[in-house]
Amino acid sequence: MSTSEPVRVGVVGLGTVGSGVVRLLVESADHISRHAGRPIVVERAVCRDVGRDRGLKLAADRVSSDIRTVSRDPSISVAVLLVGGLEPARSMMIELLENGKDVVTANKALLAEHGPELFDLARRKGRSIAFEAAVAGGIPIVAAIGECLAANRIESIRGILNGTSNFILSKMEEDGADYAEVLALAQQMGYAEADPSMDVDGTDATQKLAILSHLAFGTWVPWAEIPRTGIEHLDIELLSCAREFGHRIRLVAVASRTAEGRLAMRVAPALVRIGTPLAETRGAYNAVSIVGDAVGRMFFHGLGAGQMPTASAVVADIIDTVVGRAAITFRTTGVLDVDGPGRIAGADFQEPHFLRVRVADRPGVLSRVTGILGEHGISIASVIQHAPTAGSGAVPLVIMTHACSSTAIRRAVAHIEASDVVVGPAVCMSVLDD
Amino acid sequence: MSTSEPVRVGVVGLGTVGSGVVRLLVESADHISRHAGRPIVVERAVCRDVGRDRGLKLAADRVSSDIRTVSRDPSISVAVLLVGGLEPARSMMIELLENGKDVVTANKALLAEHGPELFDLARRKGRSIAFEAAVAGGIPIVAAIGECLAANRIESIRGILNGTSNFILSKMEEDGADYAEVLALAQQMGYAEADPSMDVDGTDATQKLAILSHLAFGTWVPWAEIPRTGIEHLDIELLSCAREFGHRIRLVAVASRTAEGRLAMRVAPALVRIGTPLAETRGAYNAVSIVGDAVGRMFFHGLGAGQMPTASAVVADIIDTVVGRAAITFRTTGVLDVDGPGRIAGADFQEPHFLRVRVADRPGVLSRVTGILGEHGISIASVIQHAPTAGSGAVPLVIMTHACSSTAIRRAVAHIEASDVVVGPAVCMSVLDD
Repeated sequence: MSTSEPVRVGVVGLGTVGSGVVRLLVESADHISRHAGRPIVVERAVCRDVGRDRGLKLAADRVSSDIRTVSRDPSISVAVLLVGGLEPARSMMIELLENGKDVVTANKALLAEHGPELFDLARRKGRSIAFEAAVAGGIPIVAAIGECLAANRIESIRGILNGTSNFILSKMEEDGADYAEVLALAQQMGYAEADPSMDVDGTDATQKLAILSHLAFGTWVPWAEIPRTGIEHLDIELLSCAREFGHRIRLVAVASRTAEGRLAMRVAPALVRIGTPLAETRGAYNAVSIVGDAVGRMFFHGLGAGQMPTASAVVADIIDTVVGRAAITFRTTGVLDVDGPGRIAGADFQEPHFLRVRVADRPGVLSRVTGILGEHGISIASVIQHAPTAGSGAVPLVIMTHACSSTAIRRAVAHIEASDVVVGPAVCMSVLDD
Repeated sequence: MSTSEPVRVGVVGLGTVGSGVVRLLVESADHISRHAGRPIVVERAVCRDVGRDRGLKLAADRVSSDIRTVSRDPSISVAVLLVGGLEPARSMMIELLENGKDVVTANKALLAEHGPELFDLARRKGRSIAFEAAVAGGIPIVAAIGECLAANRIESIRGILNGTSNFILSKMEEDGADYAEVLALAQQMGYAEADPSMDVDGTDATQKLAILSHLAFGTWVPWAEIPRTGIEHLDIELLSCAREFGHRIRLVAVASRTAEGRLAMRVAPALVRIGTPLAETRGAYNAVSIVGDAVGRMFFHGLGAGQMPTASAVVADIIDTVVGRAAITFRTTGVLDVDGPGRIAGADFQEPHFLRVRVADRPGVLSRVTGILGEHGISIASVIQHAPTAGSGAVPLVIMTHACSSTAIRRAVAHIEASDVVVGPAVCMSVLDD
């Protein structure tokens, strides 16, 4: 095959990202063919609603609702799977791999849930799966971990991996508005889905963390086993208390090696110090901070979602697949397997913590709460006691601890909540200072 | 050749980075061989002072001062060239390529000066040159531009590419200390060479910008043609004036497409707004901000120099060379050539500018200076006039303009300097607000 002969691609799924990919392949065709060494053409597309006009330069007879028009077309070598969710995406991926297609996908739920099975099938078939767009949109974090930092033993990953929840948190802070109000705004502006639960409850970020951890540590941790807290319970008072301590609140996904060489993971809102990169990550942006033993701390920041940033990552993967880089990279993806499969170290983290309890407004309460913390070996760095919340008779008591075990503080919080001085549930978050 | 047969590497140059590379290859051998699919061993090393003990695990008979022990050894397929400067580095690179070695290097001066010749030779010989470590140390910016953002037409690059000057500028700001004092400290701490001129006069950053621009825009701009201003003339008063306007000063390398599709480039100190990523880049860190037409603005931050961060990038390139990714990538490196070779658009930038002039302390001076700016079509955003500098009788007058042509303001500044109200030379810097 001469190098100028075009590569034929099938695009499965013509939603926002799929349409963006077709648009990019058509509009930047010349530029892309220079990088790929040959033209890349969209031979066929598959979608549910074939008749709908998406304004794409695709002849009507090139679009079908049948995956087999792609999987069974021998002229197509690369299939781009941009259907979300688990089914029919999983069956489609299997159909494409079984029929000898290299696959490019942005579906993180599919990889987090069925990664081992699908990677295994691809390897048996001698095919590759490229998935840069599945995590952090346009940020090339999959390539960074899998290729560019390959000389490093990765010590830790911290990421803001969900643009919707980051938009909500930074908007709450900027506007002084409460969660429900900002969520409604985010939905109106297209930053949140009608059903935002996968974004705001941490599911989406957790699935992405599972994929990154496979790359960085070689383990496939089932995403549902990763401790996960969403942002739904956060209120504006928490954000302003954090600010008084010089911090913002972000939904941070963390995976790090413990001293025993195991893996501690979690997704939860955390306090990040103002001036540090994660705190300066605003709006729908994503960010990832990685520590490698040789390279030290690296930081990546960019648009984590949206049509064209995601399409940018998908098309880079298509080019990588066409030139042969994807096949090489996929061969050694996640081959580290240092810790054995799926090992989570009970997710204990030694970190400072931020604690808010609403307490009854009477003498001795502060002493009681701090006393319980002391019993659990937790040492206090500072305390802010605010005026009583209007009408409730309850006083918000906000405590910043020195570094302590997250397990110990969870126990202490349960103890405090069970005492008679507390009104309602406490909120406890990690503090990331560096 | 079985996949478990080791790849033999020759390391040419055992300075700081060379020693780090040998150390990493030895100490992380297991980890690296998993990524490379086979062991990588240091077969031979070349250095000037053979007898010197560097604490490396290299048998004495493996080390020589003769490049031919690497270039003429048929068992060695990859050569790592970590000798700085132009000669003998250039001759060594040619010797290695002529003898069929794939080359990995961190030498930016060599590539900026002789890139076209060396790339051409490598292509004729069917070899690759990998050079991730030549720009921004551990930050994988070469891979990001050349591979990960391949679907994008790059609009602009802004980088803090020299750790020494960034250390000096952020230290001056933090300590309120003047240039000479902080430079001495930087030399003492090992952040600056005994002769720091290439770092502080912008040469090093300019050479790196030339390499990045080749990747992003396809042109080889001779680095010496890129307008370049160093940090040697900056004083602490400028930093505190910048701060009054909510900015810091950084040495920023810029390359961007003009509206006419040409390329505007420069390396110069600029004001960067506090809270933006470049302003938050402190100490010896490097940072690069890239705008692509699909991906939007991406930002990368990490250690741009130092033994192990640079070694991390070198070893990633060795792995890429071993697995075959480097050969594929090198084939399409800089193939864009959209603008024709070496096109610089007179380096005109439309940006706000910061201007400090020391003026005589008498009536009518402010009106005279602002009048000249007005004659050149430059509109003023704000003015700070400080108390007279002790003993000099001169008053520092600091002006922030609205966006204006950098050519126009250069003319206006010459006009102001030639007038009788000004004492000494003016300082004029661009302002980067986003």
